[in-house]
Amino acid sequence: DFELALLEVKPAFGASTDQFERCMLNGMISYGEKYEKLVSTMQSLIEQVRVSERTPMLTCLLEGNAGSGKSALAAALALKSAFPFMKLLTSDGFVGASEAAKCQALAKLFDDAYKSPLSLIVLDDIERLLEYVSIGPRFSNVVLQALLVLLKRQPPQGRKLLVIGTTSLPLVFEEMGLNAAFNVSLHVPELSPSEAAGVLSHIGAFSADDLPSACQALQALAGERIAIKKLFMLLEMARHGKAHEDDMSDAANADEPVALERWVACLRDLAQ
Amino acid sequence: DFELALLEVKPAFGASTDQFERCMLNGMISYGEKYEKLVSTMQSLIEQVRVSERTPMLTCLLEGNAGSGKSALAAALALKSAFPFMKLLTSDGFVGASEAAKCQALAKLFDDAYKSPLSLIVLDDIERLLEYVSIGPRFSNVVLQALLVLLKRQPPQGRKLLVIGTTSLPLVFEEMGLNAAFNVSLHVPELSPSEAAGVLSHIGAFSADDLPSACQALQALAGERIAIKKLFMLLEMARHGKAHEDDMSDAANADEPVALERWVACLRDLAQ
Amino acid sequence: DFELALLEVKPAFGASTDQFERCMLNGMISYGEKYEKLVSTMQSLIEQVRVSERTPMLTCLLEGNAGSGKSALAAALALKSAFPFMKLLTSDGFVGASEAAKCQALAKLFDDAYKSPLSLIVLDDIERLLEYVSIGPRFSNVVLQALLVLLKRQPPQGRKLLVIGTTSLPLVFEEMGLNAAFNVSLHVPELSPSEAAGVLSHIGAFSADDLPSACQALQALAGERIAIKKLFMLLEMARHGKAHEDDMSDAANADEPVALERWVACLRDLAQ
Amino acid sequence: DFELALLEVKPAFGASTDQFERCMLNGMISYGEKYEKLVSTMQSLIEQVRVSERTPMLTCLLEGNAGSGKSALAAALALKSAFPFMKLLTSDGFVGASEAAKCQALAKLFDDAYKSPLSLIVLDDIERLLEYVSIGPRFSNVVLQALLVLLKRQPPQGRKLLVIGTTSLPLVFEEMGLNAAFNVSLHVPELSPSEAAGVLSHIGAFSADDLPSACQALQALAGERIAIKKLFMLLEMARHGKAHEDDMSDAANADEPVALERWVACLRDLAQ
Amino acid sequence: DFELALLEVKPAFGASTDQFERCMLNGMISYGEKYEKLVSTMQSLIEQVRVSERTPMLTCLLEGNAGSGKSALAAALALKSAFPFMKLLTSDGFVGASEAAKCQALAKLFDDAYKSPLSLIVLDDIERLLEYVSIGPRFSNVVLQALLVLLKRQPPQGRKLLVIGTTSLPLVFEEMGLNAAFNVSLHVPELSPSEAAGVLSHIGAFSADDLPSACQALQALAGERIAIKKLFMLLEMARHGKAHEDDMSDAANADEPVALERWVACLRDLAQ
Amino acid sequence: DFELALLEVKPAFGASTDQFERCMLNGMISYGEKYEKLVSTMQSLIEQVRVSERTPMLTCLLEGNAGSGKSALAAALALKSAFPFMKLLTSDGFVGASEAAKCQALAKLFDDAYKSPLSLIVLDDIERLLEYVSIGPRFSNVVLQALLVLLKRQPPQGRKLLVIGTTSLPLVFEEMGLNAAFNVSLHVPELSPSEAAGVLSHIGAFSADDLPSACQALQALAGERIAIKKLFMLLEMARHGKAHEDDMSDAANADEPVALERWVACLRDLAQ
Ligand SMILES: Nc1ncnc2c1ncn2[C@@H]1O[C@H](COP(=O)(O)OP(=O)(O)OP(=O)(O)O)[C@@H](O)[C@H]1O
Ligand SMILES: Nc1ncnc2c1ncn2[C@@H]1O[C@H](COP(=O)(O)OP(=O)(O)OP(=O)(O)O)[C@@H](O)[C@H]1O
Ligand SMILES: Nc1ncnc2c1ncn2[C@@H]1O[C@H](COP(=O)(O)OP(=O)(O)OP(=O)(O)O)[C@@H](O)[C@H]1O
Ligand SMILES: Nc1ncnc2c1ncn2[C@@H]1O[C@H](COP(=O)(O)OP(=O)(O)OP(=O)(O)O)[C@@H](O)[C@H]1O
Ligand SMILES: Nc1ncnc2c1ncn2[C@@H]1O[C@H](COP(=O)(O)OP(=O)(O)OP(=O)(O)O)[C@@H](O)[C@H]1O
Ligand SMILES: Nc1ncnc2c1ncn2[C@@H]1O[C@H](COP(=O)(O)OP(=O)(O)OP(=O)(O)O)[C@@H](O)[C@H]1O
Ligand SMILES: [Mg+2]
Ligand SMILES: [Mg+2]
Ligand SMILES: [Mg+2]
Ligand SMILES: [Mg+2]
Ligand SMILES: [Mg+2]
Ligand SMILES: [Mg+2]
Repeated sequence: DFELALLEVKPAFGASTDQFERCMLNGMISYGEKYEKLVSTMQSLIEQVRVSERTPMLTCLLEGNAGSGKSALAAALALKSAFPFMKLLTSDGFVGASEAAKCQALAKLFDDAYKSPLSLIVLDDIERLLEYVSIGPRFSNVVLQALLVLLKRQPPQGRKLLVIGTTSLPLVFEEMGLNAAFNVSLHVPELSPSEAAGVLSHIGAFSADDLPSACQALQALAGERIAIKKLFMLLEMARHGKAHEDDMSDAANADEPVALERWVACLRDLAQ
Repeated sequence: DFELALLEVKPAFGASTDQFERCMLNGMISYGEKYEKLVSTMQSLIEQVRVSERTPMLTCLLEGNAGSGKSALAAALALKSAFPFMKLLTSDGFVGASEAAKCQALAKLFDDAYKSPLSLIVLDDIERLLEYVSIGPRFSNVVLQALLVLLKRQPPQGRKLLVIGTTSLPLVFEEMGLNAAFNVSLHVPELSPSEAAGVLSHIGAFSADDLPSACQALQALAGERIAIKKLFMLLEMARHGKAHEDDMSDAANADEPVALERWVACLRDLAQ
Repeated sequence: DFELALLEVKPAFGASTDQFERCMLNGMISYGEKYEKLVSTMQSLIEQVRVSERTPMLTCLLEGNAGSGKSALAAALALKSAFPFMKLLTSDGFVGASEAAKCQALAKLFDDAYKSPLSLIVLDDIERLLEYVSIGPRFSNVVLQALLVLLKRQPPQGRKLLVIGTTSLPLVFEEMGLNAAFNVSLHVPELSPSEAAGVLSHIGAFSADDLPSACQALQALAGERIAIKKLFMLLEMARHGKAHEDDMSDAANADEPVALERWVACLRDLAQ
Repeated sequence: DFELALLEVKPAFGASTDQFERCMLNGMISYGEKYEKLVSTMQSLIEQVRVSERTPMLTCLLEGNAGSGKSALAAALALKSAFPFMKLLTSDGFVGASEAAKCQALAKLFDDAYKSPLSLIVLDDIERLLEYVSIGPRFSNVVLQALLVLLKRQPPQGRKLLVIGTTSLPLVFEEMGLNAAFNVSLHVPELSPSEAAGVLSHIGAFSADDLPSACQALQALAGERIAIKKLFMLLEMARHGKAHEDDMSDAANADEPVALERWVACLRDLAQ
Repeated sequence: DFELALLEVKPAFGASTDQFERCMLNGMISYGEKYEKLVSTMQSLIEQVRVSERTPMLTCLLEGNAGSGKSALAAALALKSAFPFMKLLTSDGFVGASEAAKCQALAKLFDDAYKSPLSLIVLDDIERLLEYVSIGPRFSNVVLQALLVLLKRQPPQGRKLLVIGTTSLPLVFEEMGLNAAFNVSLHVPELSPSEAAGVLSHIGAFSADDLPSACQALQALAGERIAIKKLFMLLEMARHGKAHEDDMSDAANADEPVALERWVACLRDLAQ
Repeated sequence: DFELALLEVKPAFGASTDQFERCMLNGMISYGEKYEKLVSTMQSLIEQVRVSERTPMLTCLLEGNAGSGKSALAAALALKSAFPFMKLLTSDGFVGASEAAKCQALAKLFDDAYKSPLSLIVLDDIERLLEYVSIGPRFSNVVLQALLVLLKRQPPQGRKLLVIGTTSLPLVFEEMGLNAAFNVSLHVPELSPSEAAGVLSHIGAFSADDLPSACQALQALAGERIAIKKLFMLLEMARHGKAHEDDMSDAANADEPVALERWVACLRDLAQ
């Protein structure tokens, strides 16, 4: 079982795994073939970096719609790799930071990685590091250029490095030449109706009787495909949504199935 | 009665409620079903943040035309939530302030919120914080990026946070990726003719005989739908409008009904 | 008589009225119904600020073509209001000043106004404060954002404020969201042929015999509608225009009627 | 005779006239009716400033193609006005100067002018002061805004000021709102064929026999209309053009007529 | 044999050849006529600089798609030239560096080169030095202008200099005027199917039996032409790709042929 | 003979002529009528500056395609003029210099020139001084404005100045208003086939037998018209091109004719 496996592996040289674990607070669920394929392809890359002498550095981009699970997937595989050096770079600590500060942090991150024989870097939500906005469009060319150089710079003799990036803007990255700077680009899909049904069933979100109707409502009101992150959010909303209208003792329990009416009401509210 | 309820609740940990109360100087009036629905959906969100373990942070955007009552609604619900930490951020204190100063204030606001177990932040008139103007268009990308990060950053373990934003530029926010950064986006509508009539009747703005004509004139001269803020402004203008032409003793009393001729004259003046 | 009235009123708390008087060096003339209407609507606003408890702040934009008399009208009504605090803000003192300096001046102006129970601010030629030029277009977004905030910020408890702005670029202001930041927007028109005739007759610019021909020439050579400021300028030019060609003793006297030939010659010169 | 007259008049209060005289090194020649008309209109304006109480400030823009004689005309009339304060502002002293330095110089120039009871300012080649280039277009908005304010700012009580500006970009000025900032805008034309012939005859550039052919060649090779500055340049070129090919004693004498062949050869060379 | 030759030659004056060798970690393989032609043309240029008195400086641009082997080729020929001064300039050391720093480094590089009688400079990936991105487009005009000057500046008397630049953006360089700043521009092609087959055969990537199928699969899944760098990357992926799924002892050996199924699976994975 | 003449003339007041001589390392060759015409027109201008009292300053722009010989021509004529002050300004010394530094250098250059009674300034490759690039387009408006002012500013009383500029972007200069800032603009042409043949014959590049074929090959492979600089470059390449393939004793001698096969091979290589 993959979920269990993750908890067992700890990096040998003491790299903190907290930041990775926080990316998957809701756990990881195998939603089918596509997910397994993604995991296996990425494990090949991890293996290649570990073993091959000819490719001391590999770079892989995970792209997919908002909430499709890119950050969670990157974190899960990083944990599983158990490389002695592992680091997740997000923009969380860069609120209001200058472009120069970001470049410096990026450069330091890679330099730190070069010090370990086997390293893994996750660059999460690269568009945020780039301060990208589609109006204009505007972004930090300084940070972009730093990335373009770092992603192609060979590590020093004897060092190995895997870089995983995530983005929900693959077309923009194409234009920026960022896609081409990654060796491999993998698509993280939203859930198809049957995959969503599988997830809902797996976590026991609804009673067996309600499940078909719940799935039907989901597809009708939230669209053909749904991001896994949004699916979890909707469930929480439905669970707590109308609680205050009834008496408190009836308050939703996180482990009980969600009532179908609440689920439908919640979907309707947000479909407006 | 909702209006009364608001006055009774005070946050437990001493957060000042003055700034919230100033947003609703003209009080809150239920103008019908749509308003009740809005209030109930937002109360669900407040409840969910309070209770759910899986969604320690929720973000909700109120969007609607100028004067439709976004700020008042956000303030009213904040007061009602009675969270121990509550803060309203507007641009009022940032006249001529630098982008850096705004980012710092934003970052500090969230950091302060993280210190309380249960917090609520209102970001009022976000386009003003962003210094947005449609010519260009121009805006502070620095502030925008800070918002995009802060709105997605998870609070520390054990802290819970509800963020309510307001804007009258939902389409612009869409392009900026700001909409997507909010979990929920709710529309605050202008008043339909019957809703406006309800409000006018509720506050006794006209004598019972004048009301139908007053409503008709409103619709004919000010358009199909009207913002609640504008409706109050028009009433005040009509009340004081021609006072100086008559003798002073006849000056309008804020509690008396407005004379129909003044109402129509005032509507006409401003319809030019 | 309105002209006389203005001279009699002096603000009670010592605010200087010089700057207002300089805006109307050529005096104010009632050119008919439209003018009276404008004056009366603005007096209503002044009255409303003075009396209403619910609208402690009102903002009014005077828009109209160059020279149509916006500044003079704003100044005349300010003087007539006799509010204890009155201030006119123009760009005259800001030649080469930085955006920051302008913002600071604006913020200080409003802060000063908040100190008086009843205040009036005239923001003259706002496009100049904004450093607007249609090529680009360019303007100071810093100053614009300061204005957008200040025009919507409520004065402190118990303070009342009327803001009158002037501009000849209403369409640009629309795009900037500045129009929407004013409660009321009033159009200051150019003179129609009959209004122009009225003004010329009122000031005795021509002998009674010449007047009809003078008006006809004006309309034929200067166009259907004319700004009142331009009308006064043309009269001065005609009065002094050809003086040097004749002997000096014949020099035009400011009180005598203008000779028709000079009027027509002057109109022709500038119509080239 | 106008040329003589200019030499006789000297400003009463010691203003240096050198800079004005340098603008008309080739002297001034009346090339016909249009020229006389221009001079007379501008003298009217000078007279009006001197005499009228109601128009203490007048601003006049001379616009016309490159080399049409704008600077010379402005300088000639300035000298003729013999105002106690007269100053010519060009960009000659501002090579590489900052926008701020230019603004400061402009502001100081107007302040100096305000100190004299009767002042005249020539702003020569305003597009150069504005650092205008049509690619972009780019220009100094800081200087533009300073000009827009200074050109509309009334001088202090009792001071009178005439401002003459020159430009060869009237359409650009229109877009910038600079045209509207001048009370009067006058066109300085290029020479028509008959005007050019008059000038050539007046200065005895050709022998009486050669004149008709010289004029014909000019029109055929240099185009229908020619700037007066270019006409003088062509004459000098023809005079010196082929000198080095013949023996030196034959060198052209500045007072002798130009040989027709040289004239035609020179026109042809440059028409390539 | 060219590969061997490279190892034998060392620059006479002690210039470090490490940076050049790192560009060709996978060695150089002659993939046919086009490659031989490229090498021979460049050797002519090297010879010309060494010998000719009239062309003390030559500049050559290698342009071709990403991964086509530009950097390796430039490095290989630099090593072969064995000039006493040889330097490779990449952006690797300029992460986050300012434009000024880059200009200074460029200027110093050329000045250093001028000190040796015979020098060779490789400017690798010039678009990265220019911080080029196609959105906008944006780039450092400061660095571009420095390059444009340095590429045309003659070395001091008696000094000789060969500059080799590489880029994958020849069309952009055209627009920038950079192409014209090089004396010669050579295209580095991607591999045709037969050239790719030659390379695969030369390095014994597949067993003789598998080779035809391997080539066919390559063409079908990776397109008509393939960059040599990508070909090597694909081989490494296929070699290590599925290793973890089988038992470890079966792990791919870098010298053994790749199994056909792995090759096809790998091509399919990345063709998605 | 012109070539000889140049060597004999030295400026009287000690101005260094080195920089001018370096512009014509390959000597000057008269390639026919057009060249003679260009030289004679420019000599007329030199003469005019020396002699005429009415045109103390003349400015001349040499425009033509890259390598057409503009810099060499300007330098040759500067040397021939033997003015006591002569200076060539290129961008060679301004790598990475600021706009301000360039402006200062320009201003100083003109001020130095004003100190000599008779001066000549060559502004070589003005687009480089302007840091022009067609993408954008971008350029230094600060330097452009400095040039526009300096090119029209009259030298002090009694000083004479000739300015020669070179550019290969006449259309861009037109848009910038730079063309109009020069009194004269002359086109420097590329060589026609017969002019190229003349040059090749004059320098004995080929044996008499090979010449016709060499010319034919040139036209067929390098296009109808060719820049003289490129012609010289091609000859050197052909001379040294394949040397390394044969034995070294056979190495090309700079004075011997070029072998026809090498010429054709070289043309073919570069025509790819
Ligand atoms: N198979 C799965 N793959 C990815 N996420 C999963 C999976 N199963 C469960 N999850 C949960 O779904 C959520 C996915 O959210 P995540 O933040 O990774 O999405 P994202 O694509 O990075 O979103 P964003 O575009 O906002 O960055 C996580 O909470 C994760 O624990
Ligand atoms: N049901 C209601 N909802 C909102 N506002 C109400 C309601 N009833 C009364 N009001 C009053 O109407 C006014 C609404 O104005 P408010 O400033 O909230 O609008 P807004 O949409 O934020 O405007 P803006 O676009 O200018 O920010 C307030 O004065 C408020 O007291
Ligand atoms: N009824 C009137 N309304 C306005 N101005 C009048 C009136 N009667 C006379 N005037 C005179 O006409 C002139 C109007 O000029 P004013 O500067 O106010 O116009 P403006 O619209 O502000 O011009 P600008 O667009 O240049 O700012 C003033 O001198 C004023 O004294
Ligand atoms: N009637 C005239 N009007 C103007 N200039 C004349 C006249 N007669 C002779 N001139 C001479 O013609 C020249 C006109 O050049 P001037 O520099 O004034 O033109 P300009 O329009 O200012 O040119 P630019 O567009 O380059 O600024 C001067 O040398 C002046 O002495
Ligand atoms: N004949 C060859 N030419 C070029 N490279 C070769 C050749 N044979 C083998 N190689 C290998 O192929 C790789 C070519 O990659 P290289 O980095 O030079 O490509 P590039 O065009 O510079 O790529 P990029 O566009 O990413 O800069 C090198 O590892 C090199 O050793
Ligand atoms: N008649 C000639 N005219 C110009 N150059 C000649 C002539 N005869 C020989 N040459 C030689 O041709 C070369 C011309 O190159 P030059 O650098 O002057 O061209 P350019 O037009 O300035 O080029 P660029 O556009 O690169 O600045 C010089 O080496 C010069 O010595
Ligand atoms: Mg993510
Ligand atoms: Mg609001
Ligand atoms: Mg005004
Ligand atoms: Mg001029
Ligand atoms: Mg490369
Ligand atoms: Mg040149």
